[in-house]
Amino acid sequence: MKAAVMTSLGHIEMKNVPKPEKAAPGKAIVKVEYVGICGSDLHYFEHGKIGDYIVDYPFILGHESGGVVTEVGEGVTNLKVGDRVALEPGVTCGKCEFCKTGRYNLCPDVEFFATPPFDGTFVEYVEHPADMCFKLPDNVSTMEGALIEPLAVGLHAANQVNAQIGQNAVVLGSGCIGLVTLMSLKAKGVSPVYVVDVIDKRLEMAKKLGADVVINAAKENTVDAIMKLTDGAGVDLVCETAGSKVTTQSTVELVKRGGDIVLVGMSPDSVLPYDIGTLMNKEATLHTVFRYRNLYPVAIAAVASGAIPLKDMVTNVFEFDDTQHAMSYNCENKADVVKAVIKVAD
Amino acid sequence: MKAAVMTSLGHIEMKNVPKPEKAAPGKAIVKVEYVGICGSDLHYFEHGKIGDYIVDYPFILGHESGGVVTEVGEGVTNLKVGDRVALEPGVTCGKCEFCKTGRYNLCPDVEFFATPPFDGTFVEYVEHPADMCFKLPDNVSTMEGALIEPLAVGLHAANQVNAQIGQNAVVLGSGCIGLVTLMSLKAKGVSPVYVVDVIDKRLEMAKKLGADVVINAAKENTVDAIMKLTDGAGVDLVCETAGSKVTTQSTVELVKRGGDIVLVGMSPDSVLPYDIGTLMNKEATLHTVFRYRNLYPVAIAAVASGAIPLKDMVTNVFEFDDTQHAMSYNCENKADVVKAVIKVAD
Amino acid sequence: MKAAVMTSLGHIEMKNVPKPEKAAPGKAIVKVEYVGICGSDLHYFEHGKIGDYIVDYPFILGHESGGVVTEVGEGVTNLKVGDRVALEPGVTCGKCEFCKTGRYNLCPDVEFFATPPFDGTFVEYVEHPADMCFKLPDNVSTMEGALIEPLAVGLHAANQVNAQIGQNAVVLGSGCIGLVTLMSLKAKGVSPVYVVDVIDKRLEMAKKLGADVVINAAKENTVDAIMKLTDGAGVDLVCETAGSKVTTQSTVELVKRGGDIVLVGMSPDSVLPYDIGTLMNKEATLHTVFRYRNLYPVAIAAVASGAIPLKDMVTNVFEFDDTQHAMSYNCENKADVVKAVIKVAD
Amino acid sequence: MKAAVMTSLGHIEMKNVPKPEKAAPGKAIVKVEYVGICGSDLHYFEHGKIGDYIVDYPFILGHESGGVVTEVGEGVTNLKVGDRVALEPGVTCGKCEFCKTGRYNLCPDVEFFATPPFDGTFVEYVEHPADMCFKLPDNVSTMEGALIEPLAVGLHAANQVNAQIGQNAVVLGSGCIGLVTLMSLKAKGVSPVYVVDVIDKRLEMAKKLGADVVINAAKENTVDAIMKLTDGAGVDLVCETAGSKVTTQSTVELVKRGGDIVLVGMSPDSVLPYDIGTLMNKEATLHTVFRYRNLYPVAIAAVASGAIPLKDMVTNVFEFDDTQHAMSYNCENKADVVKAVIKVAD
Repeated sequence: MKAAVMTSLGHIEMKNVPKPEKAAPGKAIVKVEYVGICGSDLHYFEHGKIGDYIVDYPFILGHESGGVVTEVGEGVTNLKVGDRVALEPGVTCGKCEFCKTGRYNLCPDVEFFATPPFDGTFVEYVEHPADMCFKLPDNVSTMEGALIEPLAVGLHAANQVNAQIGQNAVVLGSGCIGLVTLMSLKAKGVSPVYVVDVIDKRLEMAKKLGADVVINAAKENTVDAIMKLTDGAGVDLVCETAGSKVTTQSTVELVKRGGDIVLVGMSPDSVLPYDIGTLMNKEATLHTVFRYRNLYPVAIAAVASGAIPLKDMVTNVFEFDDTQHAMSYNCENKADVVKAVIKVAD
Repeated sequence: MKAAVMTSLGHIEMKNVPKPEKAAPGKAIVKVEYVGICGSDLHYFEHGKIGDYIVDYPFILGHESGGVVTEVGEGVTNLKVGDRVALEPGVTCGKCEFCKTGRYNLCPDVEFFATPPFDGTFVEYVEHPADMCFKLPDNVSTMEGALIEPLAVGLHAANQVNAQIGQNAVVLGSGCIGLVTLMSLKAKGVSPVYVVDVIDKRLEMAKKLGADVVINAAKENTVDAIMKLTDGAGVDLVCETAGSKVTTQSTVELVKRGGDIVLVGMSPDSVLPYDIGTLMNKEATLHTVFRYRNLYPVAIAAVASGAIPLKDMVTNVFEFDDTQHAMSYNCENKADVVKAVIKVAD
Repeated sequence: MKAAVMTSLGHIEMKNVPKPEKAAPGKAIVKVEYVGICGSDLHYFEHGKIGDYIVDYPFILGHESGGVVTEVGEGVTNLKVGDRVALEPGVTCGKCEFCKTGRYNLCPDVEFFATPPFDGTFVEYVEHPADMCFKLPDNVSTMEGALIEPLAVGLHAANQVNAQIGQNAVVLGSGCIGLVTLMSLKAKGVSPVYVVDVIDKRLEMAKKLGADVVINAAKENTVDAIMKLTDGAGVDLVCETAGSKVTTQSTVELVKRGGDIVLVGMSPDSVLPYDIGTLMNKEATLHTVFRYRNLYPVAIAAVASGAIPLKDMVTNVFEFDDTQHAMSYNCENKADVVKAVIKVAD
Repeated sequence: MKAAVMTSLGHIEMKNVPKPEKAAPGKAIVKVEYVGICGSDLHYFEHGKIGDYIVDYPFILGHESGGVVTEVGEGVTNLKVGDRVALEPGVTCGKCEFCKTGRYNLCPDVEFFATPPFDGTFVEYVEHPADMCFKLPDNVSTMEGALIEPLAVGLHAANQVNAQIGQNAVVLGSGCIGLVTLMSLKAKGVSPVYVVDVIDKRLEMAKKLGADVVINAAKENTVDAIMKLTDGAGVDLVCETAGSKVTTQSTVELVKRGGDIVLVGMSPDSVLPYDIGTLMNKEATLHTVFRYRNLYPVAIAAVASGAIPLKDMVTNVFEFDDTQHAMSYNCENKADVVKAVIKVAD
């Protein structure tokens, strides 16, 4: 079968790789139809590593995947051939304290698509545990299935701060993760949601996807704007998805007394000057997000019900054979591409 | 000023009563514009009592109120003359453990509009603590302001079961309280929501307000229908608002393993045969609702944002001078009237 | 190896059964040292069934087990030969929504020791998943290890009501489950805890294990006594472990406004007249318990720290060869035996 | 009556000030018996200000108070003359969103003893709202009543991280606030609790009050020690009470994956370099504490039940007339004085 294989820094070649044989017990073989391009894919493509995770070539990227079941292994009862599915990428041990308590995203033994040394899903077929393949209802496409992965991040961010109807929020950053966070907050009843970015095109997308007010931080001071909008109180929820030093530092200024901050975007510098004293005076709480847990069914249901207009986020669709181009184009046009997907098959 | 005064069982007369004088410190005088007719108003009108609360004539009904501030007392800073407001009807002590912990709806010393011996708001002007008068934004009318009260009940029911995006629910009963519960669940992202009643007109209203599926329990078996819709699993959340023995008893059959039930409607019999054993085998939880707390700002924000189409629920508007007729008509046409309001002024 | 095999109603014979062969991957073989006798063991012994679970003879009882690891299978890293362990008896699928969200006690595919058709641990050796064998610290004996199972029930009951320091509680029933609930509440800081039973010997044991006040319901009216002790307010937490109709019904009278009830003991009649109306007027919540989850490490730590004097609960120790006698004696002396264990080896 | 009046920086004089006249409605007059000396009192004494709060002389310090009711105003029902009480020092508005939701510690209009411009309780008699005077049971002294205030801080810290039985914790700092945090954690069932300080005398006190292991950070590396004690996992709960830059920064290293940090001690620098990246990789949460809420009844009950050995913390008792000396001595012997109280009367 065909695979888009990263052979060296910045290079992806279409290659033949072995197709998964007969599905193992408890597993399914899935014909991949769509794979989203994530910021982490681009980072590995450009830099060959993320933190301690270093690519050993050849390596296959891609972890946001939707497809169709072509075979199921012994004992699989939740799926049948022909089912359209979204693939949750992190396979965990099921035995550790984190797995048993439902916080499996913290499992130290996770095997995650496209996180070295585990290959990803820029391939025609992939074998995956059946319980990590989530059936899509008729009104949810496999392209949307691919986007369930980033949506789960947004929902997890909203859950970490226990977002509730009646609260207001600011989302810092209007890239893919900012947008899924916005949509998650709105779907949970949070309103108004203010979205901040420095790129107008992204802010327009935020408006389209439900932002009540957008703020271009290149043109106006974010803290001033939010204080004006909230009569000086600040917002209940601050969701940082831009991953910059300045936006991370601003969270404590933006949050209301007793409010909640969640950090989703990872800043280049791990250690940052942060105003701990003001956080304490406000009795605010600083939450963080590491991937997500138990949210594929929730995300799929939210898309199916129409609560989350997920597919409207996609700005670019590339053919599988053009994966090299897709990656390069993304890297060179970050301001322009909000969300790109690879069409592996359909 | 004019007041609609209940002078005996089933009789209301328009009378002159003293208008509130100068607003006391911390209080506001509000010109009443709209007052909703609640099931409890009808119950007092028809029976002269609810449980231990017995009407001592003359008595003034009405506790769902919206209006305009005409005067504010000393020290009031949150309101000014001309502000349009919704009036939260229960004034509490602020000193007991329930008040201090934010559960003021359980305050034993509450003084609640139209709950004997405290008169209600079927009057032209009312004095009320300023902190219990919640300002309405420009896009929320005082008629909607009147309906914030029942909406707060629906939101409290949804909060008691910690309703979350990704869950499904059934609402038993499609009267006013069933409908506000439906809208609250939908606004918090719960989907699908199934609504059950025996009156088609009410179910049509439920459909209009967001119900995903409606079930006429006079025509099909509710438990069978829900089990079919949920592949035999039952629903995460069961909200009982019909207040009948049979619907209350059915809650344990409808709920999923580990799920949550909330009882909102009060059954005529306090003691009921209930299947405790099945509740335990499912490890389900039975929650209850007594009025609401801290939800006026939430409800107003949800209406303002468009998340809750509150005014679409109103089927009948009566003039203030026709209050006697409004009450009688309601009592005689319960199947037909979904929600009626009195227009006191505008 | 030897096993105590139930061959017919009320009969247990010591028999030779095959010893577990080489430990399978991920599993451990444990030499059983102590097994507690649970009310469910006695029920199967006397009645041959519990609800839909019907014994098919021959059958082996016992599910409260402590022992020593004698062999570990491939891939086992959390245990080594010689480790002293407590065995969590319910093996679950790890794949369903309940398992993944950490609520594995609700897994429909659980295989639980001594619940037909799965044999229990009245045997010399048992094979068990290594992740369900919890290592005991030096200061916790394997007899205490056997008692971790009922303690987990008590801790789960306390967790279901979110028991907190500053709350008070009543425990209805002072048998094994009442006592572990008492100890769990006290260890979490709940005080005072009132314990109610009709057998003085059990109440003395409750006193010894930390009850602040004990009430003999055969001698005084429980509701009157609790109201007197709480100045008429009722208690924050009501834990029903007696499993009788009258105690279950009394829970709603005993609970404070806004308080929490948890039902642990299963009443003979599944359907009971229950005062739903009063539950609603108090805005109280009715919680239930089905086994436990994620509590073996917690229970072991609480015993190790001295917070829970678990072993003081044991009143009778029987030899393995006397299992028939142990069971009969328990059935005939329920008032006298608080907690009995079988010493399989030591 | 006599008062210890701060007349200039570092100077306190015993003066005559007007005794409170007849108790106002809803208020009580309390004869002060004991007042604890808090770090904030010392800070005002030495520096004349804390942040934006600047002393305007003459000023009266003291906010940790226990005494006896000598008079009650109209409408007071919870107290009678002769009741021994602990005084909660922060009087709040009761009207704002924070007060109504039970988070009154965030009320912007709080009037707090000994926080400029509000005088404190280094006086013989004080008038205070009756609902802020909490009756002490017979087995709790007014000296312990004075110490309820710092204990409430410790309990609030433990609540902010939702401390639970089965968790372990480290407390950084073994001064008064570290010790009350330690005792609060232990009383809630957290174990083991590790306490870190650089002064042996304080660590001995921690041992006496329940610390499982103490670490002298002047002699060994805290992070290494904790990692050794937890097999490299870190602790579930990290409570920072030392208020230094280095201890605040270490919290992220000490916490376990998915764990919780709470900051109680205020570092001299508001803005600190903090390892946000590691916090995110661990999906840990950073909580903060601003005073406390709804914890006087909890704290009193915990002392009464014996769960918290509060009085054992006191190392120094000074006479009222020696207040100047008491303050100076405290400032000069910080390593030696763990907790000092002023005996105003007895």
